[in-house]
Amino acid sequence: MTYCVGMRLNVGLVFMSDTRTNAGVDNFSTTRKLFNWTVNGERSITIMTAGNLATTQAMISLLEERSVATEDRDPSILRQDTMFQVARLVGETLKEVIAYSNPNGPTANDQFSASAIVGGQIKGGKPTIFLVYPQGNFIEISDDTPFFQIGETKYGKPILVRAYDADMPFDEAVKLLLVSFDSTVKSNLSCGLPFDLLIHENDHFNGDRTIRIEENDPIYRAISSGWGDALRAAFQALPTYKV
Amino acid sequence: MTYCVGMRLNVGLVFMSDTRTNAGVDNFSTTRKLFNWTVNGERSITIMTAGNLATTQAMISLLEERSVATEDRDPSILRQDTMFQVARLVGETLKEVIAYSNPNGPTANDQFSASAIVGGQIKGGKPTIFLVYPQGNFIEISDDTPFFQIGETKYGKPILVRAYDADMPFDEAVKLLLVSFDSTVKSNLSCGLPFDLLIHENDHFNGDRTIRIEENDPIYRAISSGWGDALRAAFQALPTYKV
Repeated sequence: MTYCVGMRLNVGLVFMSDTRTNAGVDNFSTTRKLFNWTVNGERSITIMTAGNLATTQAMISLLEERSVATEDRDPSILRQDTMFQVARLVGETLKEVIAYSNPNGPTANDQFSASAIVGGQIKGGKPTIFLVYPQGNFIEISDDTPFFQIGETKYGKPILVRAYDADMPFDEAVKLLLVSFDSTVKSNLSCGLPFDLLIHENDHFNGDRTIRIEENDPIYRAISSGWGDALRAAFQALPTYKV
Repeated sequence: MTYCVGMRLNVGLVFMSDTRTNAGVDNFSTTRKLFNWTVNGERSITIMTAGNLATTQAMISLLEERSVATEDRDPSILRQDTMFQVARLVGETLKEVIAYSNPNGPTANDQFSASAIVGGQIKGGKPTIFLVYPQGNFIEISDDTPFFQIGETKYGKPILVRAYDADMPFDEAVKLLLVSFDSTVKSNLSCGLPFDLLIHENDHFNGDRTIRIEENDPIYRAISSGWGDALRAAFQALPTYKV
């Protein structure tokens, strides 16, 4: 499993992913699931993946290869004019990779399936995020749905729903994501640290902030242990149901 | 889907279930999933069910039928000497019902599958709770695992893990369950109010407290709306991750 969240704020975009991959509980390792392509002054594109690792790595490799030799190869995500076209290219690539392993065509449930969160900004366009399905189609983030989750989404969702605010600064959003990720890794062994974090500030095309948050990070540890106390205090403050 | 929790405290047992049943999102209704058999002065047995409604209703009907005419029919859950034997009887009945619909034998994933939480106390024995699987086998609650969930377990689990305390009085435990259930019904349309609540006090065999908590219950409403505010306040109190 995996846990990735892409979130849109009024100040920009925030992406966070865990890094655990596993084939059964007796075989797990750390792998990167957050990838970024930046052209200074022009674009920043981030992709996070969940699902079959062979599928997601092949998809990223294809996108990578096609983007490196931009003179020779088309299509490249560095040549698309809009984020919509980027999402379409990612969807096509994902669908193509799944079809290679499963000639009967992609389905949401098959073992080679995968999904992706694709977001970023291209100069002249707005920052946005898409959720790309294994069938190659996708949906776009909106004010009503200001974040997308993939992988093990359930444990970490209630706090996102309750505490998200589009006006949050990046610091607050990262704190919120850490609480959501902490709830998830505490409940599902197939999600684990370190976490990869990428912050894209609106209209800022000269390098995004990327941070890897390790298990022993002091702020993460303080948030993780503090959240239990904070939850209990919050719980105490509620009215009691007399029985 | 369904959400049921059976919890053991030092003062006794608490059972709560939702009441929504559905076949697709366009066909849902309210149905009871919490059932109790009490023999005054002797025993109180509670069963909560999740899974295929035809299966769980047939299981309850069989148990009910066998328990009503205690003179004529065996085995009856009113005649078992221990809660362990009750759990075994429930497991056998569940397995039998699933096998009727699926001659290939029960599996955890098949469409006729179901599971149950069985708990209570028989005079001379301790109060306890079992989680019964569709294969008919079961596990018992322990100090390390002081509550069982069935159905849509993920959204409501983090708060249970964080705030459960064996020394809680019943009032607090019900408040905790209401927070857990509120997080679940807010995230999954297939779980819904009213909730059924049953409280068994240790060594008390003259009727348990049963309450149906309706959507417009003022304390539930206060807990539901207050929890959002309390969570945000708890969140604000955490240290910020500077990025």
